[in-house]
Formats: sequence, C-alpha cells, structure tokens
Amino acid sequence: MSDSPHQSIRPSGIYSPSTYDAAMRAGNIVFVAGQVAKDEHGVLIGPGDTAAQVAVIYDNLDKILREAGAKREYVIKVTTFLVEGADAVVAGEARLAFFGDHRPPHTGIIVGLPEGVQLEVEVVVAFPESTK
Amino acid sequence: MSDSPHQSIRPSGIYSPSTYDAAMRAGNIVFVAGQVAKDEHGVLIGPGDTAAQVAVIYDNLDKILREAGAKREYVIKVTTFLVEGADAVVAGEARLAFFGDHRPPHTGIIVGLPEGVQLEVEVVVAFPESTK
Amino acid sequence: MSDSPHQSIRPSGIYSPSTYDAAMRAGNIVFVAGQVAKDEHGVLIGPGDTAAQVAVIYDNLDKILREAGAKREYVIKVTTFLVEGADAVVAGEARLAFFGDHRPPHTGIIVGLPEGVQLEVEVVVAFPESTK
Repeated sequence: MSDSPHQSIRPSGIYSPSTYDAAMRAGNIVFVAGQVAKDEHGVLIGPGDTAAQVAVIYDNLDKILREAGAKREYVIKVTTFLVEGADAVVAGEARLAFFGDHRPPHTGIIVGLPEGVQLEVEVVVAFPESTK
Repeated sequence: MSDSPHQSIRPSGIYSPSTYDAAMRAGNIVFVAGQVAKDEHGVLIGPGDTAAQVAVIYDNLDKILREAGAKREYVIKVTTFLVEGADAVVAGEARLAFFGDHRPPHTGIIVGLPEGVQLEVEVVVAFPESTK
Repeated sequence: MSDSPHQSIRPSGIYSPSTYDAAMRAGNIVFVAGQVAKDEHGVLIGPGDTAAQVAVIYDNLDKILREAGAKREYVIKVTTFLVEGADAVVAGEARLAFFGDHRPPHTGIIVGLPEGVQLEVEVVVAFPESTK
C-alpha cells in the first residue's frame, strides 16, 4: 500500500491497470486517468469504431464517478483526444448526452493513440466545498 | 439550467459554444476550455496565420479572466498546442507579453487541430485562498 | 517580480527557462511544467534515446518536488507525451520505479515534440489538507 495522503479510486467493473489508479482524490479535487474503450478484462472494444468506443468510455467514466461518490455535474473539465478530427462530431454528441445541461469546459486535440484506439477522454472533477 | 454546484463562466464578446462553457469555477480553481482564434461569431481569424491567431486567443483569454473576476497573475498553468513546432517562438512571445513578470508553468506540444487552426491555448487559474 | 499571490517554484540544479517557472503552488495544489530531458544548462540529454531521457526527466521532477517540499506520494496526475508509442513501455517502467507503490492516474498520448526530444512528462501535485 502506498502511504499517499490521497484517496485511490479503483472501481470494480472496469479494467484496473496495474500501473495506475483510475482516479485519485485530493481534498475536493479528483483527477481521472484518460479513459479508452477497454472492457473489464482490458480488451479494447470496437477497434477503429469511434461510436462504439465513446459509449464504452462514458460508461466507464460513469463507474469511476460513482465509485468516487461524484455526480456528473461535478466534472469541471473534459479533454478529448482524437485520432481523426472528423470524430469530433460523434464524440461531442456522446459528451452532451452524458452531461445533459451541464457544460464543462472542453478541449479537443488530434493526437496519436495505440493501434485501434480511436479516442481517449480525460476529466477533472471537483466536489462542492460543503462536502470537504 | 444545470444543477451543478460550480460556476459557469460564459463571457460576452467572445464566441460561446453551445456544447461547453468557456470556463468553470469550483472553489478557488478555474478550468478554462482550450481557446482557438475565433471571433464572437465563431469565425476563425487568420486561417494559417499564427501571429494573428495568438493575438485573438490572448484577447479572448483576457475576456474570460475578466468575466471570472480573475487577474492574469492568478493563472497557474498554460498549455500551448501547436500544429507547427516552429510557431513556439511567436506563441511564446505572445504569452510573455500577456503575462508580463508572471511566469506560469508551461507545456507545449505539437498536435493536430482543425483545418486552418494553427494553435490552441489552455489555462488553469487559481484564486488566492483569501478570496474563497 | 510578479505580484502573483501564488508561489513560484524554481529549483536550482535544473535548467530554469526564462519564460516560465518549473512549477507554481496555489493553496494545496501545484502545477508543474512539462519536463523534457534537459541538463541544468538547457542542453538536451540523449537525443533520440528514450531510456536516457526518461531518467533525466524523473531526476528533474524529483528536484522540483523537493524544492516544493512535496513528497512523491503527493502527485495526483501524470501525463506522458511520447513521440513513439512503443516508448510507452520504458516510460512506464521509469514511472513505476519513481513512484513505487503510489499509483497516480496516468494519461499517455502520442504527439510531436522538438527535434531529438523523445518524451515529456507533466505532473500535478496536491499537498494534504493539513499542510494548508
């Protein structure tokens, strides 16, 4: 066990990498590892299929937020990493569907990702002050 | 309206995307969406012209900071996304001109951006503790 | 001198860029500039040699954390920017060796970096509440 003062968040039902936690909470802020479309065994879903992958990603993010005890409305930043710029449309639709009326600031950039991975989504979460 | 406990920052005078807020404040910290050189109608300024674009970007960041009630000296991180590495010089000069003696930590990487967009700048802002 | 309310962290023994601080602390949170493998004179170590570069990077991060008075266990997010995806293995081994049982959330993406630079590592640090 680490003697970190911060809270490791490792939800069940999603793939748990051996080398990093899915998320970590320090005070009111939670940083979440970039999420790609892996099932709970670490197998990539829908290689090359952006629509399939983004659905898995937001499902995994939902599990991480629940494990952290955070609502979707607590997310204060979203970053989307895309392999193909044209995928911004489908990724944006999934983001809107996930957050509803909540509109966290967003940055989208085009990068390289491992073979078959079409996109990766990273979020930062903040709990309200009163939950400290 | 979202029932988020956090404060949406959507300044007038800059383009307001329908899908995300320009910035969001949680406690003392403000995450700002990556800024590209769009005018208030969402039209890209100076396609392919890095010097023109970076001027618009820092002007837009100024409007976001003012709307948030934040000084430039409250910025604690800057990330610059460039399409062409050689543009780091002009982007760096604009950053220095904007921040003056303030020297927020900076990361610069080369990525892909939509057609004609030469760079994108993202910042994180922190209010002093006493303003909580 | 800047009149920023935040604490500039500029350790000796590593290259100190004129245009930004190595790190900046606001309240309990510290944002650190992306680190590349430069020696204290600003000379790139091991051009094209990822293993050599990642060792220098974590050595420099250690100096930054020490200057900030932070333990490695305070790091709550790591981002690794790679030029070549295959370098994720050696970069991951170095990350594990540095953090031991501590497992901060991690995002890795493939981007462009200046000539000869194989990777860049960026971290976010949080002090425990009690150290405020």
